[in-house]
Amino acid sequence: MKKSNTAVNLWIVGSIGIDDIKTRTSDRKNLMGGSLPFSTAAASFFTTTGAVGVVGGDFPAAFDRRWKAFGTDLAGVQRKEGATFRWACVYDNNMIERETLKTELGVFADFMPELPESYRRAPFVLLGNIQPELQLHVLKQSAGAKFVALDTMNLWIDIAKPALRRVIRRVDLLTVNDGEARLLTGKWNLCDCAAAIHKMGPAYVIIKKGEHGALLFSKRGVFIVPAYPVRKLVDPTGAGDSYAGAFMGYLARAGRVTDGVLREALLHASAVASFSVEGFSLECLERLTLAQIGKRVAELKRMMAV
Amino acid sequence: MKKSNTAVNLWIVGSIGIDDIKTRTSDRKNLMGGSLPFSTAAASFFTTTGAVGVVGGDFPAAFDRRWKAFGTDLAGVQRKEGATFRWACVYDNNMIERETLKTELGVFADFMPELPESYRRAPFVLLGNIQPELQLHVLKQSAGAKFVALDTMNLWIDIAKPALRRVIRRVDLLTVNDGEARLLTGKWNLCDCAAAIHKMGPAYVIIKKGEHGALLFSKRGVFIVPAYPVRKLVDPTGAGDSYAGAFMGYLARAGRVTDGVLREALLHASAVASFSVEGFSLECLERLTLAQIGKRVAELKRMMAV
Repeated sequence: MKKSNTAVNLWIVGSIGIDDIKTRTSDRKNLMGGSLPFSTAAASFFTTTGAVGVVGGDFPAAFDRRWKAFGTDLAGVQRKEGATFRWACVYDNNMIERETLKTELGVFADFMPELPESYRRAPFVLLGNIQPELQLHVLKQSAGAKFVALDTMNLWIDIAKPALRRVIRRVDLLTVNDGEARLLTGKWNLCDCAAAIHKMGPAYVIIKKGEHGALLFSKRGVFIVPAYPVRKLVDPTGAGDSYAGAFMGYLARAGRVTDGVLREALLHASAVASFSVEGFSLECLERLTLAQIGKRVAELKRMMAV
Repeated sequence: MKKSNTAVNLWIVGSIGIDDIKTRTSDRKNLMGGSLPFSTAAASFFTTTGAVGVVGGDFPAAFDRRWKAFGTDLAGVQRKEGATFRWACVYDNNMIERETLKTELGVFADFMPELPESYRRAPFVLLGNIQPELQLHVLKQSAGAKFVALDTMNLWIDIAKPALRRVIRRVDLLTVNDGEARLLTGKWNLCDCAAAIHKMGPAYVIIKKGEHGALLFSKRGVFIVPAYPVRKLVDPTGAGDSYAGAFMGYLARAGRVTDGVLREALLHASAVASFSVEGFSLECLERLTLAQIGKRVAELKRMMAV
């Protein structure tokens, strides 16, 4: 664990990986991947963000440098002996369906997240998609958490539902895709899914629908936010993580959760995610500026203005 | 053919059927169906609308009465000896996928649409989803057409592409779903699909994405309009037809096609389609008022307000 002096405003726990990704036009190897680089990089456009994860001895120093260049605090990233989590996939022609070719957990198999001292008073928390027990473990170390968001996936709904329900009970916002929402609640209609999730605890539910945008359900109503229509889809990997990271980064910068802030956060998340998929790994986010994000948010607003 | 004295502002050609529909909770037989009753009923909320189609001797007089109650002009509906088009389907649990159990064309097999005199000067036209040759045949009878929209389906893209391209060249707006847009253009990205369709002729392209809403592409940009999140999905049959009908009805009422009118037309189409799926056949549209449509449009605007 590295020393950190800056108190972060938001911390995120998640996976860090090295990815091989094949699309119909490209075949790229050894890319910085996992949910955490995407989510923290996206959040770092808006607020001081700390990363909680684990890498092996093979994690390239260049990846550390590129990650830090976003301003992300890496004090929460443990460096262990062994291999970094490795993942390989191939995308269908539609760039939506994908087949996983390889999953080698490496040091991620024994990951036990520990919160650096400088993260413990952070008001905003995003529990990225890892085992629910570990999400709970690290959340308990967080004395200052005021607004906690949780991401999860079908695997944990299938094999760890009781633990997952314990975490869900403690968070303010759950973010799931439409299939996961249905799997978690046993309901078909997304409004019914959201109502069932509200009853489990979270005041806010974001249902992500990929290229179709997202719905945010609060007890006061629904916000609908479309995805930005991407003209140059290069690699969808990490889109959901960039989305969640940018959303929480925006909230954390605002420092409060009002309807107006939530709407703007959703639009900024759409914009950042749309850039993320225009390149492999973090390549597009690395060239991105706040001005470009603002421009795309304005475009989105024009597209949906009523 | 019946006599008609009212000049209509919009006419629509399409199929008229008697449907059997099974969902996970219901099994309904002998419902008024086909694209035309949905599209013309939806349009009739906004403007004087004429229907061009064919029914057999078995088409119940009660269906005629219910249809006319929307204010729809039925002068263009031919009554032939033989059986009305019959269709049966069963919906999957998700209420999106469906399996066709029966298609009996009946008198629809020899349908040759003829435009009543009182329709020939109508400025707005919706060519519903029938054989492209017939769409062309009836369009040629329409001296007054100023704004023509075209709906089609994968079947015609597969088996009648040359004829379909000839109709497409003559229309102002093409409405297709995302799968059809890809099939027609051979492109994956919906922005690329729309650009390719613009080159085929239409100045406007609506890509319908069902419960995910729709995109309208003009040469000036993109409008994104979400679907209204339906709480009580009873029968999705006819949603796309109600959508297209309400859209064209709204345009026809406005009498001009500006960006502002297009946006409002899309929102009203979303609202009407959302009511349409809350009941079988036209049952929900029959109870619907303009005030309720307006209320749902206002709700949609709040959900997407930025």
